[in-house]
Amino acid sequence: MKLPSHGSNPSHVYRNLNLQVPAALTDFSVNINPLGPPAFIRENWENYFQYIEDYPDPHARELIHSISLKEQLPEEMILAGNGAAQLIFLLGEMLRGEEVLIVEPAFSEYKEALRAFGAAISSLVLDERTGWDLDDRIFPAMRGKKAVFLCSPNNPTGKMYSRDMMLQVINAAAEAGTFIICDEAFLDFAEHAPSFAPYITRYPNIIVLKSVTKMYSLAGLRLGYVLAAPPIAAKLLAKQPHWSVNALAQVIGASCMEDSTHASKTRNYVSEERIRVTSELRKTGFTVYPSSVNFYLIDAPQKEGLYRFLLKKGIVARHTENFNGLDGDYLRFSVKTEEENDLLVHALKEWKTC
Amino acid sequence: MKLPSHGSNPSHVYRNLNLQVPAALTDFSVNINPLGPPAFIRENWENYFQYIEDYPDPHARELIHSISLKEQLPEEMILAGNGAAQLIFLLGEMLRGEEVLIVEPAFSEYKEALRAFGAAISSLVLDERTGWDLDDRIFPAMRGKKAVFLCSPNNPTGKMYSRDMMLQVINAAAEAGTFIICDEAFLDFAEHAPSFAPYITRYPNIIVLKSVTKMYSLAGLRLGYVLAAPPIAAKLLAKQPHWSVNALAQVIGASCMEDSTHASKTRNYVSEERIRVTSELRKTGFTVYPSSVNFYLIDAPQKEGLYRFLLKKGIVARHTENFNGLDGDYLRFSVKTEEENDLLVHALKEWKTC
Repeated sequence: MKLPSHGSNPSHVYRNLNLQVPAALTDFSVNINPLGPPAFIRENWENYFQYIEDYPDPHARELIHSISLKEQLPEEMILAGNGAAQLIFLLGEMLRGEEVLIVEPAFSEYKEALRAFGAAISSLVLDERTGWDLDDRIFPAMRGKKAVFLCSPNNPTGKMYSRDMMLQVINAAAEAGTFIICDEAFLDFAEHAPSFAPYITRYPNIIVLKSVTKMYSLAGLRLGYVLAAPPIAAKLLAKQPHWSVNALAQVIGASCMEDSTHASKTRNYVSEERIRVTSELRKTGFTVYPSSVNFYLIDAPQKEGLYRFLLKKGIVARHTENFNGLDGDYLRFSVKTEEENDLLVHALKEWKTC
Repeated sequence: MKLPSHGSNPSHVYRNLNLQVPAALTDFSVNINPLGPPAFIRENWENYFQYIEDYPDPHARELIHSISLKEQLPEEMILAGNGAAQLIFLLGEMLRGEEVLIVEPAFSEYKEALRAFGAAISSLVLDERTGWDLDDRIFPAMRGKKAVFLCSPNNPTGKMYSRDMMLQVINAAAEAGTFIICDEAFLDFAEHAPSFAPYITRYPNIIVLKSVTKMYSLAGLRLGYVLAAPPIAAKLLAKQPHWSVNALAQVIGASCMEDSTHASKTRNYVSEERIRVTSELRKTGFTVYPSSVNFYLIDAPQKEGLYRFLLKKGIVARHTENFNGLDGDYLRFSVKTEEENDLLVHALKEWKTC
């Protein structure tokens, strides 16, 4: 049986599988910060009311200024968007009808956006045997392509590609006139993980995608940005509707750009919890794959059975049926709070003993 | 001298004209509800905090259900968007490379969106001699066009085209396979003003654009929707990024769809104030053009002088230099609160006597 697609709506999953929704649900399928949004948002919430009424800046100029300071890149290399999803669609439009390579498994939106605009999509599907790492197969695969979509640290595997390998890819792509679109949506969660944004000046074929909604728990507000050479940023901007970034996302996003404590506190917490939970699960007999971020894969040989078992216990995993290279053989869990992670460990222990 | 473009940012206008920003500013250039957002938003603001964290429904299904109930149209005829601007850009994309007619003067976003996607744009420019009303010139002008953009009640003139004339246009367009895109962003402010949405079932060439941000003062949150025949709505949806409508706009928007008191109270207030202010201004010697909505045009022969005079007094008018058919010869003012409208009357009286 095919499992229902996710779309970050757990009750939809229960409905589709004819399961009753338990009184308490813990959603491990969503990869946002387990510590929630930074405290200043809650503290200033009253004050944000004033922003709903008036038009925001059509091009989010103050926000872009804050991003520019944070990323140490000029404003003309930055485009802010209504979530990374909008920026991926703008890239899809830019690549209309072109040949594009996606390194998979990967976030499904790349394919959705490219399909919407009729790109010729090919895939390089990485797999468990190499730990879903990039290898030399990328070089022939990207030949003749207009662009390559790469997600590092990867969603859904949590694998971060090595800097050396990435630079080799970028270099080869630069010579061939191929764009390398690096989705760094989860980079903030990884320790000692440098962005490829500073390389754009030297390699204008790099396009970096950033999300603000994962680290700052703003998935409901929507905010992402793209870093690219000025002509590319200008090209994307030309197809972006005015006022794409709502007023709350502009003002809250700008404050997030000035934050570093929430991010570093989160990184520490996530890293400690990931190490703790994954070693607990390994002790229980699960294969848990190494991850550098706030989610990880486990091997789930009796996949559908385990997925349903967890759902009945109010634990929503991310099944992997619609990820090429995973094909449903694994489950993905986000790193949540200590208490929530313990619920998961407990449930998975129960599964092993029942 | 060319006046700076607006973009709903008054301080930008002052900066560009080298004028000092006065301590108190009243912005008559923005056409949102003078009564502000409905009271329930302020009352529930604390409660909305919870929505910033999680992903909203990717397709805003509950909101679309509420729109469906309000508009009495099936859900597959509705697409919600990140402000009407996003929907206009999706229409621009749908009309890529096509011949499109814009009835002007009109909201500048139509042209921006059509240009971004390389449509061949032509204009039917209405003018003061006919009170900016539609006349028979539309029939030859729309011949061979894929679509016609029409805004009724019109922004910036406030003119509402007659139902008979609109139906003649729609009929002729239906025979020729031409889309009629009716922007009804300001229809909510007009009394006894029927929408063309109920005609879509009979004439699937009608596409109706609606804004929620004007009547409900949610320009900062962004929300609009399109009503169209199911195949058209599906076509637009295919190019729309997931999660385009943020979580706050979804939940607040759905509540607005159930409101009728705020809208009717506003309609009464705006109508009374518009009649009061415009007759005051006429007494002072200004030519004020009839409007059915929450803004109106006045004749401003010494245009730049008057515009600057008002700015110095902290009153921001909408100059009309970038509207074909107005060409800067008029100023547009929104209907604001009684107190604010009195400020305007006072300032314009002063101008006449100085």
